[in-house]
Amino acid sequence: MSTDRIAKYVRPEIQALHAYQVGKADNLIKLDNMENPYDWDESVKQGWLASMQAAPLNRYPDPEATGLQAKLREVMNIPADVGLLLGNGSDELIQLICMALSKPGATLLSVTPAFVMYKMTAIFTGMQYSGVDLKDDFSLNLDVILAEINNTQPAVIFVAYPNNPTGNLFDEEDVCKIIEASPGLVVIDEAYYAFADASFDKYLSRYDNMIVMRTVSKMGLAGLRLGYMMGNPDWINEFNKVRMPFNINCLTQLSVEFALENVEMFNRQTQQLCKNRELLFSEMKKIPRIKCYPTKTNFILFRTDPGQATRIFDGIKKSGVLIKNLTINGGALTDCLRVTIGKEDQNAAFLKALQESL
Amino acid sequence: MSTDRIAKYVRPEIQALHAYQVGKADNLIKLDNMENPYDWDESVKQGWLASMQAAPLNRYPDPEATGLQAKLREVMNIPADVGLLLGNGSDELIQLICMALSKPGATLLSVTPAFVMYKMTAIFTGMQYSGVDLKDDFSLNLDVILAEINNTQPAVIFVAYPNNPTGNLFDEEDVCKIIEASPGLVVIDEAYYAFADASFDKYLSRYDNMIVMRTVSKMGLAGLRLGYMMGNPDWINEFNKVRMPFNINCLTQLSVEFALENVEMFNRQTQQLCKNRELLFSEMKKIPRIKCYPTKTNFILFRTDPGQATRIFDGIKKSGVLIKNLTINGGALTDCLRVTIGKEDQNAAFLKALQESL
Repeated sequence: MSTDRIAKYVRPEIQALHAYQVGKADNLIKLDNMENPYDWDESVKQGWLASMQAAPLNRYPDPEATGLQAKLREVMNIPADVGLLLGNGSDELIQLICMALSKPGATLLSVTPAFVMYKMTAIFTGMQYSGVDLKDDFSLNLDVILAEINNTQPAVIFVAYPNNPTGNLFDEEDVCKIIEASPGLVVIDEAYYAFADASFDKYLSRYDNMIVMRTVSKMGLAGLRLGYMMGNPDWINEFNKVRMPFNINCLTQLSVEFALENVEMFNRQTQQLCKNRELLFSEMKKIPRIKCYPTKTNFILFRTDPGQATRIFDGIKKSGVLIKNLTINGGALTDCLRVTIGKEDQNAAFLKALQESL
Repeated sequence: MSTDRIAKYVRPEIQALHAYQVGKADNLIKLDNMENPYDWDESVKQGWLASMQAAPLNRYPDPEATGLQAKLREVMNIPADVGLLLGNGSDELIQLICMALSKPGATLLSVTPAFVMYKMTAIFTGMQYSGVDLKDDFSLNLDVILAEINNTQPAVIFVAYPNNPTGNLFDEEDVCKIIEASPGLVVIDEAYYAFADASFDKYLSRYDNMIVMRTVSKMGLAGLRLGYMMGNPDWINEFNKVRMPFNINCLTQLSVEFALENVEMFNRQTQQLCKNRELLFSEMKKIPRIKCYPTKTNFILFRTDPGQATRIFDGIKKSGVLIKNLTINGGALTDCLRVTIGKEDQNAAFLKALQESL
């Protein structure tokens, strides 16, 4: 029986898991997953299709993604002495880091709540996971974190900057103290870099135990799956060893390179989304019986009256808008919902649906 | 110092590795990497570009790749009661299997020589690796394998069918005996399925500890990175848990689905390559001082006089044709070179270069 063999050979911590579930959004306004809602300019789209024409689909992709790496360095101002590594989304980068560091008993430390893939990947790769609770306002509990660093001597610490799913930027000095206290590696996950107007890239030359990780997903290219990490070349070299040689397919290489040549369009869209965010935030703050948390991302986390979140989520969905129900995660996210910033009319539709559902 | 931290926290077996190197092929006839050399029909290419036009680059890809899964089931005749899982190339599927099965001390068993990623992935995921030498004619050493199964109780056995880099099909009954003797899982890697006229898919209903793995790379889509595995749904369910939710990007999903709708073109190209292979094989057999091994793939492995392989490889390269030098791997591949089947004129250029280099 397959079930007997599975019980015997599959790692028990994997058997205990359920597969990651992603909600369906048929015919709904999709404000659930931090996606850029804007279309491409038609001229850019036609230019992209023209560049696709020469894609060598029959050849293995360039394992070093040479052209894309050069374009990333140019557009993102990554100095030549900083190492650079590409992944099939940030998800794969997290996995590479954990695979390389998963000595027996090694610990991955992060905060709670944080991006779920930190903990999941720790489980996938057999690492111990330690999550230190954030304070009630979702700021870092620095003393507890420093004590936990001292206690567990973590091989790696993941800090999302800004944090997901809370949306806030942690105090810069606190994060520096964490890096300085860390015996191993600290990964600053800047997935929301485009919306934050803040980055740790300025510390790349100061800290040789820090990696900065980003993605092109939030900039507007979530369908392509490209994450990148920057840091000390010695660390990058180790993670590159566990990378599958052809991890970035040829269409993603070509398409992201093309998009970076047209980065102004994405910057314009990002700036518009930041404006939309400020407007939506100020409107939501006027609504009684919800509490909105400050955000430097393209989403807003808000808290409902106790026990009302799922009812409100369902009401908004019935009105045709899909957001994210976080109360089901429990803990500090109990009674919390998260809305992604959309186009002006989408945000208005959400606001109306929210007010009607309260 | 980063080097001190790396020495302390990176797994020693990773520190000891070198990153996978892939040769460059600037302006050479590329017969080194089992790629389909044929262009697409212009009408198919235009249809593909038209289908790209609607690609939702700003949205996360469908995590279940619903459309592509349905098309794969239809074109590859995968019954509804057989589980199906997609990966970013077979490489990722091997990684998923190993991550799920890498209990402390668990063994991955394969043969030597085999596809290098079996051993590499065992190292990446902390599994023990056991490789049983093939016989001199590259057939299975069944008695030794059965003894090693008994000895190591492997969590998983990888059998490439046909085998890479040797090119031959193992005896079907021998492989059945391995499956029947295996306490854990057996993965039949049918990467070269398109050229083999043989498959273990007929055994999917008989063996619930067998997974059949394939790729669209050799069919002509190496740039897209799509592998798939079929097998007992209970096993597939476990491997799906360690899969990154957005592992197949939207362009690969759309492009492979489109290609499968035009599978006749790829089948025609594959049949032409099989004809080219028989012709090239018969020409190479006439050449004294090389020994060609039987092949059911799109490549031919051949052995030179002792100590001559690298000289001959270099000579062929100087004539403008890049093949693969396997003698540097040592062991049973000492004095061996491998040529991928190309177009008629490419194969002729290779033959001429080979004869001049001998």
